[in-house]
Amino acid sequence: MSKAQSRDAFEARLRKIGDERYHDKHPFHRLLHSGGCTHDQVQAWVINRYYYQSRIPMKDAAFISRIDDPALRRAWRSRIEDHDGSAEKEGGIARWLRLAEAVGLDPDYVASTRGVLAGTRFAVDAYVHFVREKPLLEAMASSLTEMFAPKIHTERIAGLLEHYDFANKDSIAYFQKRLSEAPKDVAFGLAWVLDHANTLEKQDAAAAALTFKTDVLWSQLDALHSAYVDPGRIPPGAWQPGEGQLERSG
Amino acid sequence: MSKAQSRDAFEARLRKIGDERYHDKHPFHRLLHSGGCTHDQVQAWVINRYYYQSRIPMKDAAFISRIDDPALRRAWRSRIEDHDGSAEKEGGIARWLRLAEAVGLDPDYVASTRGVLAGTRFAVDAYVHFVREKPLLEAMASSLTEMFAPKIHTERIAGLLEHYDFANKDSIAYFQKRLSEAPKDVAFGLAWVLDHANTLEKQDAAAAALTFKTDVLWSQLDALHSAYVDPGRIPPGAWQPGEGQLERSG
Repeated sequence: MSKAQSRDAFEARLRKIGDERYHDKHPFHRLLHSGGCTHDQVQAWVINRYYYQSRIPMKDAAFISRIDDPALRRAWRSRIEDHDGSAEKEGGIARWLRLAEAVGLDPDYVASTRGVLAGTRFAVDAYVHFVREKPLLEAMASSLTEMFAPKIHTERIAGLLEHYDFANKDSIAYFQKRLSEAPKDVAFGLAWVLDHANTLEKQDAAAAALTFKTDVLWSQLDALHSAYVDPGRIPPGAWQPGEGQLERSG
Repeated sequence: MSKAQSRDAFEARLRKIGDERYHDKHPFHRLLHSGGCTHDQVQAWVINRYYYQSRIPMKDAAFISRIDDPALRRAWRSRIEDHDGSAEKEGGIARWLRLAEAVGLDPDYVASTRGVLAGTRFAVDAYVHFVREKPLLEAMASSLTEMFAPKIHTERIAGLLEHYDFANKDSIAYFQKRLSEAPKDVAFGLAWVLDHANTLEKQDAAAAALTFKTDVLWSQLDALHSAYVDPGRIPPGAWQPGEGQLERSG
């Protein structure tokens, strides 16, 4: 058996995966953050990304369902609470629906997930299945894209506020809140993965899991870009601009 | 409970799903069959479609693993035999690798599934999961895209033979063989679904399953088109033209 990488070298390897493959490098995000998205494109992003948000607590519950250590279960439970909240209209998913309203979408339409691209569903569901089926170390490692999230959230907050009328403190509260939530999750998950990946084989598996997760994120933006930006080929059954709009009472 | 559709009306409903959503309507197939694909694009298609082929026997085995009726298991078993063959170099997957060689790809590279688009993997894996998890009727109904396959295979055989140097009787044997295999599968599967979808609720579920499967096929071509045709944005880690080429001995 080959020798495991040092803790520092292994952490650097994980961070390099983000440098090379995280979806902050996808052209859709550059377009979004620089103010280049049309109103329809922003709506398409909000509709599709909702599907990801809505599946994260299911993913985390699947993970918890496989853990026999109460302490680890407790540590993970806060993620579900962060997304689902403790009362109606609280939590990350509710905040995402506030963003949906702010961009002129009917939140009930968005929450129905009708019109979500098949490519989005397949990528997100692949993530849920991965966490349900893979060894705990790999399931945990796949969450570590959160290491790279504060940078993209910071860019996004600045970019949305600068370039889009809908953006204000309330409508983009989701991203602001993630800036405080994600670091505690990352610190815990990263330490756990560094502690438990104690052979080269396990380190390879953890790195592959993180790579898989970058694919999950990138693939969603590929589907979005293909359908609504370039070449703009909307697949059968997917959201058509104009659908699911908020009716504003005069 | 609403009244079930008549057998004829329900069959017509299933066929309409194909008319509206089957992937023969995707621009990539029009490009391929009309001779408009570059050599790289043909190779990209062969590499990615291999992943689908390679997962079909896994899907069928998952289906069989859930059936307690020996007769139904036997009827389904021929699908695995069709794809895997009964000896090395036989069966649909081996025929696909002959196509890979004919277009200049190293069959070992193709069989490794390295370089397959994440969007392809997610779509195909979604199909395997669907068949593993859903009620038997829905799993069966999702196979009924085979009703629409003879038309696309006929078009493809003619289009490839007319437009591409690599195409000959041996290299495209996969499609010719499917023309004789698919109809027996369809006849069995369609009759089973028509017999067992005896309430409107079950008919709705079967129609939704077939719609899901058209998404699985369409989404693969969306990923392929986006990466290698228009706009030609190859995601991180995916096949780059020039990789995995067959080394021809002089």
